[in-house]
Amino acid sequence: MTMATVYGLGLGPGDPDLMTVRADRLLRGARHVAFFRKAGCEGQARSIVANLIPEGAAEHPMEYPVTTEIPFDDPRYNEILAAFYADCTAHLKALAEAGEDVVVLCEGDPFFYGSFMHLYTRLKDDVPVEVVPGITGMSAAWTATGAPITWGDDVLSVLPGTLPEEDLIRGLRAADAVVVMKMGRHLGKLRRALLMAGRADEAWIVEYASMKGQTVTRLKDYPATSAPYFSIALIHGRGRRP
Amino acid sequence: MTMATVYGLGLGPGDPDLMTVRADRLLRGARHVAFFRKAGCEGQARSIVANLIPEGAAEHPMEYPVTTEIPFDDPRYNEILAAFYADCTAHLKALAEAGEDVVVLCEGDPFFYGSFMHLYTRLKDDVPVEVVPGITGMSAAWTATGAPITWGDDVLSVLPGTLPEEDLIRGLRAADAVVVMKMGRHLGKLRRALLMAGRADEAWIVEYASMKGQTVTRLKDYPATSAPYFSIALIHGRGRRP
Repeated sequence: MTMATVYGLGLGPGDPDLMTVRADRLLRGARHVAFFRKAGCEGQARSIVANLIPEGAAEHPMEYPVTTEIPFDDPRYNEILAAFYADCTAHLKALAEAGEDVVVLCEGDPFFYGSFMHLYTRLKDDVPVEVVPGITGMSAAWTATGAPITWGDDVLSVLPGTLPEEDLIRGLRAADAVVVMKMGRHLGKLRRALLMAGRADEAWIVEYASMKGQTVTRLKDYPATSAPYFSIALIHGRGRRP
Repeated sequence: MTMATVYGLGLGPGDPDLMTVRADRLLRGARHVAFFRKAGCEGQARSIVANLIPEGAAEHPMEYPVTTEIPFDDPRYNEILAAFYADCTAHLKALAEAGEDVVVLCEGDPFFYGSFMHLYTRLKDDVPVEVVPGITGMSAAWTATGAPITWGDDVLSVLPGTLPEEDLIRGLRAADAVVVMKMGRHLGKLRRALLMAGRADEAWIVEYASMKGQTVTRLKDYPATSAPYFSIALIHGRGRRP
């Protein structure tokens, strides 16, 4: 029996019309569809493509054992997650060994943050794995603002909102264009960092880019003190422009 | 007569299978297809989708009046290019006013570097313009390396290879993951900057990501002293990984 392939399928930012032709074709032909989700939820990745999963395909939800119950820096967090990823890996590997291709649904681009890479690194030496890149959420966010993110010689930095405030300030000062991911409850810290870096007036926040409920707001006019998980803050570059 | 729409169509990194479902559909239904090219060339964007342009569609090549004959910092460079973009804008606007939708082919993502933004800013107040995001060349490049670019709390910086050497060094030191675009003849400077930043052993170079002729090489094993236009250097991040 030849080993089958595990596909890490980048779904793009949320609008199924922004999936690649390749991802669309692989998904519509899939017999096994795996995806991460929080216990008790449908799963964001699955909900993006709910209408594209073929009738009769077997679904393999992979439910996170923890989300925010244990802090990141608690050693148990890593132990529990590592055991979970090992379980997922064994499950996908068994399918591939039985000759069954599996499509793993990945929001955005599988190699740009995200969870698939934890399976990828555990699978790649034993099982054929193919990664299909996807449009990132940040790309949908800057498209939604109706203005280019980078021009000419602009430097773009992508900063996780989880960084310490001083690192955010330094990053905001050093780059022309900036994208801040994973903001959520870190919005207050980001506002302070933007003020310190003298860039508060340039920042935008995009909620649910390319999805139902998309909003585009200047951050200074955004009233909330925290942001939904699918929010991205950005500052446009200002490079050479004839 | 209702005004038609100008579409800035992100084609992605080069493999037409990595176009979005939306871009693929818009292109296959197009009656007018515009694209930039160097005089005497087919044009890279057009060549990506040569097999997808509908029979009978009118093609509107927009030929750059200069490329490298005049240096960027010569004021004539900006004047000549500004006049060229104004001409292109007038042509696209006339089509839209005549009720004809036009698709403008854009390599990568239209709002991430690239040329369409120069038309976009000139058109957007007078003509309906819609931008379809695309997969960036850098995303195809990190996918080609077979390793994730960013993990956990990694900072990613995108540095144009055209930057002064000191700015490259500073950028390489400040970020976890790095992408260097527009390298070409700046490869020697980049190698020096990588050495100064202590990161020469971590760098990869990807030529023609997702295209015919794709190569993935550790930069220290890459013999050439300059790189093809479609080359991207990168350093992977090393964040938290359970």
